[in-house]
Amino acid sequence: MTAKTIRLAIDAMGGDEGPAMVLPGLQVALVRCPELTFDLFGDQAEMERVLADLPDVAKVSRLFHTSVSIPMDAKPSQALRMGRRDSSMWRALDQVRIGEADATVSAGNTGALMAMAKFCLRSMDGVARPALAAIWPTIRGECIVLDVGASIGVDTDNLVTNAILGGAMARAVFGIDNPKVALLNIGEEEVKGLEEVREAAQILRARNFSSMRYEGFVEGDDIGRGTVDVVVTEGFSGNIALKTAEGTARQLAEYLRMSIGRTLRARLGYLLAKPAFARLRDKMDPRKINGAVFLGLNGLVIKSHGGTDAEGFASAVELAHDMVRNELLRRIAADVAALKETHELADAG
Amino acid sequence: MTAKTIRLAIDAMGGDEGPAMVLPGLQVALVRCPELTFDLFGDQAEMERVLADLPDVAKVSRLFHTSVSIPMDAKPSQALRMGRRDSSMWRALDQVRIGEADATVSAGNTGALMAMAKFCLRSMDGVARPALAAIWPTIRGECIVLDVGASIGVDTDNLVTNAILGGAMARAVFGIDNPKVALLNIGEEEVKGLEEVREAAQILRARNFSSMRYEGFVEGDDIGRGTVDVVVTEGFSGNIALKTAEGTARQLAEYLRMSIGRTLRARLGYLLAKPAFARLRDKMDPRKINGAVFLGLNGLVIKSHGGTDAEGFASAVELAHDMVRNELLRRIAADVAALKETHELADAG
Repeated sequence: MTAKTIRLAIDAMGGDEGPAMVLPGLQVALVRCPELTFDLFGDQAEMERVLADLPDVAKVSRLFHTSVSIPMDAKPSQALRMGRRDSSMWRALDQVRIGEADATVSAGNTGALMAMAKFCLRSMDGVARPALAAIWPTIRGECIVLDVGASIGVDTDNLVTNAILGGAMARAVFGIDNPKVALLNIGEEEVKGLEEVREAAQILRARNFSSMRYEGFVEGDDIGRGTVDVVVTEGFSGNIALKTAEGTARQLAEYLRMSIGRTLRARLGYLLAKPAFARLRDKMDPRKINGAVFLGLNGLVIKSHGGTDAEGFASAVELAHDMVRNELLRRIAADVAALKETHELADAG
Repeated sequence: MTAKTIRLAIDAMGGDEGPAMVLPGLQVALVRCPELTFDLFGDQAEMERVLADLPDVAKVSRLFHTSVSIPMDAKPSQALRMGRRDSSMWRALDQVRIGEADATVSAGNTGALMAMAKFCLRSMDGVARPALAAIWPTIRGECIVLDVGASIGVDTDNLVTNAILGGAMARAVFGIDNPKVALLNIGEEEVKGLEEVREAAQILRARNFSSMRYEGFVEGDDIGRGTVDVVVTEGFSGNIALKTAEGTARQLAEYLRMSIGRTLRARLGYLLAKPAFARLRDKMDPRKINGAVFLGLNGLVIKSHGGTDAEGFASAVELAHDMVRNELLRRIAADVAALKETHELADAG
């Protein structure tokens, strides 16, 4: 009857609104995932004030006072300087390192979180550079895109590792046995340049990893089409793709708003079709596409959008919950070990 | 009273529908730009059949029979093998090379057109690698994004040249004196990797070219926001950004369709708001975002979408018209010469 408790370390000071957004987010998540418990890192008084209205969250939480919060606009180096050891962000990560919590969730700034996570949790054995994976809504559902900005510059081994990491995440999060994985490219075979992408394709095809189905190349417009479950790229183009998609969604929402305001008839029609529009807006809302995941570290770290609301933060928390329950870390370790083995076989052959 | 005649060399066989789409497109463009004349390359009989219904186009056109058409799915190397010298695409380019026409417009396949254009027209003196520039709709109007796939792999000099080319195009096409130019990046200053982008930034800032206003870095979501007039990147990430934006627009149009079909009330509202939706659809339609331009060649080459309709093709033709009238080629040559000069000064200094 009782599922195993999952303990998440929460950076309560992350995000534009801090505890006032984060803690109500936990309340939302707790309703849907009652086996969650929380270790909360942040300003004790501020957390207690918000928790006074959230008795359910208070009941399953341990509070840890921290005196430093990383500003949303701090640069990674600044963040490390000011917040290593005693910031809410660092302490939430460290709780995973020491084995007290199963995963960290923070809505703090991405660069700082990435730098601290690497520093605190270190890369998993066999992973040269950790990756940041985004869950991307598609016409058919969702897919995983990685790397969206953790490591910049294309590198063959890195792309192969990202395919492994993304494949493991797809199995844990989407619950599919044999996820379809593809490399992001700018067309079919005869592409010049970016040798690294073509080399990675050769390796993925040749090694034929049992943890995924390698599907070849996809282009930018295939991501939203849901052609595959995992789209692999390097951090520069991945980040640009992600931001461009968000920008396009915002732009079209703005067009929609402008189109509707123009005539009385359009406004009347809008009133009638309002639920349909609400659904559309919902789908366009980048806060719903919430939760990027750092993969390849000795611990699970989930990044929530800084500008999100309680509902958005809850979805990041639920993502953490799913990844812990489905043993993402163990899966990744096994797949990375298998990758290493085929590397050694290939090197020996 | 009479403006100087502009002569465009048209690849009549390009695009999914060939002359049946291309020639009506010329008719549409001719109404808005009456000083246009055309050299048409394609199957004589087929062109004559379509022109029978388009006397205005027929009156200002010279027909050149070609026996080879480049298939839309031909690879660049195939296209060069089968169509160098005698295909409609090649002949339309060559007409510009020999000085008989002011620009080439083709809806043929991009890779083939790019390969043939480089081969036939050659790079302009001072330009190592030509670029493909797209006109991108923004909330404020339009901006130019380049390179979107002509040359793959990041290179500092290339980025600087692209800034120069894009700046010249913005002045010719948007009619602004001092276009705002930025480099596409994945965040603020402290980015690791992609040294080349940061080096290009230093050069653009230090040289302070009179032909543009260098604005620093922008991210993917700034493109649609219309933050700047010209967004500079290398071909891999640029192509991925462009395709991702197109894919996102298509995805949201699909969501809109799905949202509306769900209830009677929504459908009723939709009927009332139909003109507003039509405007929205129009803005989302990739065919309207038509006309990419090859920059840095000894001649102007405009690529229209292969799947476009007559209206879309007309917009590519009008783009060609504007670029010729506003002497884009002369502007580029002058700016590239100025770039070369500052390079020499910098090297001497």
